[in-house]
Amino acid sequence: MSSTFPVPTMPAPPVSVVGLGQLGGSLAAALAAAGRAVSGWDVDPAARATAEAHGVQVTQELTGVVVLAVPLAEMATALDGLRVDPGATVTDLGSVKVPVLAELGPPLGDRFVGGHPMCGTERSGHTAVDPELFAGARWALCLEPDTDLRRWLRVAEIALAVGAEVVPVTATEHDDAVAAISAVPHLVAAALAAAAGQAGPLALSLAAGSFRDGTRVIASDPAFVTALVAGNAGPTTAALDRVRAQLARPWAELVADGHAVRAATPGRRPVRVPLDRSALLSLGRSGGAVTRRLAAFVEGWIPDTA
Amino acid sequence: MSSTFPVPTMPAPPVSVVGLGQLGGSLAAALAAAGRAVSGWDVDPAARATAEAHGVQVTQELTGVVVLAVPLAEMATALDGLRVDPGATVTDLGSVKVPVLAELGPPLGDRFVGGHPMCGTERSGHTAVDPELFAGARWALCLEPDTDLRRWLRVAEIALAVGAEVVPVTATEHDDAVAAISAVPHLVAAALAAAAGQAGPLALSLAAGSFRDGTRVIASDPAFVTALVAGNAGPTTAALDRVRAQLARPWAELVADGHAVRAATPGRRPVRVPLDRSALLSLGRSGGAVTRRLAAFVEGWIPDTA
Repeated sequence: MSSTFPVPTMPAPPVSVVGLGQLGGSLAAALAAAGRAVSGWDVDPAARATAEAHGVQVTQELTGVVVLAVPLAEMATALDGLRVDPGATVTDLGSVKVPVLAELGPPLGDRFVGGHPMCGTERSGHTAVDPELFAGARWALCLEPDTDLRRWLRVAEIALAVGAEVVPVTATEHDDAVAAISAVPHLVAAALAAAAGQAGPLALSLAAGSFRDGTRVIASDPAFVTALVAGNAGPTTAALDRVRAQLARPWAELVADGHAVRAATPGRRPVRVPLDRSALLSLGRSGGAVTRRLAAFVEGWIPDTA
Repeated sequence: MSSTFPVPTMPAPPVSVVGLGQLGGSLAAALAAAGRAVSGWDVDPAARATAEAHGVQVTQELTGVVVLAVPLAEMATALDGLRVDPGATVTDLGSVKVPVLAELGPPLGDRFVGGHPMCGTERSGHTAVDPELFAGARWALCLEPDTDLRRWLRVAEIALAVGAEVVPVTATEHDDAVAAISAVPHLVAAALAAAAGQAGPLALSLAAGSFRDGTRVIASDPAFVTALVAGNAGPTTAALDRVRAQLARPWAELVADGHAVRAATPGRRPVRVPLDRSALLSLGRSGGAVTRRLAAFVEGWIPDTA
């Protein structure tokens, strides 16, 4: 494994998106709006029509960077019946990374780079397509020991092109982190809503902002939420145990600590990081992100807590 | 106690608001905007100036309906040093009702009517004043066995005048309900944030919509949140136990049930309810609200789940 890598400047590869729902359709539309060559496919004719209306070429021939934007349960079979350029880089937008890597790593080898843009809303499907969805979002991109850094950079460049910031992570680090900030918030929202339902019609009638916000994510498709938590069961159980332990603390301490985390607004310190797996992963672990790729470096930022 | 009451039409009484922060200042500004006679007082000159700019008369002489819009810890002393008309009706906007009733009931007797508008945001203070704050909000208004129904209607009329819908409740019912839909969501938000802080900078860096929404309320002033939960400790403990029990269920069941409660959108069936304590409380328990007062009835709605 080479840990530093000379990266030649090359033209941006075409992008082929499989699955044109909220995430995939938004990515394809954003790339088309940026003047990039982007094609896509979806089993649903209505999703294909929405993509075409956004300037996406509909085709079953996939080349360049192939983006799998399908539900987790369909990830392993998403390319069945499609014609994929054998040299194409394949990435995905799935909300867990260790299970996807276990499924797609063996057949695809170093052509696969796992990814997860941290956006999306409680809506889903092609009617929720929004080319601005990725602007300002973090996009986790997996750098495993055997990841091909050139292919990683090709996928990173796509994320940067639609306005996201790239967070280099390992699949394991990613799954632990999203258990805390996505899976468990979904379960907690479900528990708040179900318990308020037990409390009865008066409680639901008085429910205002704190209840609405605290339960918003459980308005999402239950099948998506169940896949999100069940597909990341180990880290989610561990993160849920941490939340349970917090709930057992004296309330004044809990409120003070929770407020301190939520209200913290660290600044950003610009950094340049060499194109090196270990340096990039350090950037991610520090809470930073990549904002631009240069010839032999990436530019980005780390939190400035000074 | 008379359970039905002939209500003469009378001119709207003046309103005096003590405490001109987000809630009190917004109420005074909304009433002034509606052309109502409204005065107010705050110990903070900046809050008084903001109120004056909204057309509120600043004075220490309180008459008509006196609204206590001060933090819970200051409720018992809010009228100290002010000149209050001995015939004035007194209400409050505090987020718990049994403790406020225990403090203000004995000195004020049937002149006191406890209330709680279900609005407000994570912001606070006079810089967060918004005359539209109450539009469409529920406003819980306590009907205890010894509540003077004429005074209750005077306060209800103020809530209706600023666009809220009035939910008749007992103080105990209110505190049980808000434990489930306000106190516990604040504690859960704190636990989510504190646990994500434990998970480290990478997790916080990847935090997106589900984490932001699920933790928004803990951005509120910690002193306010601590008073909210500690001032309603018994019902909050019971409601937190219900959430804990939900979190111990199989995830697929929990997600399905939580989604069903959150996604339910009951219709509204218009109703007329006699001016009778028991009938009004039944309306509140059914999840309905009062939208208009007539001579011998109130108009409102109940959920239509058919």
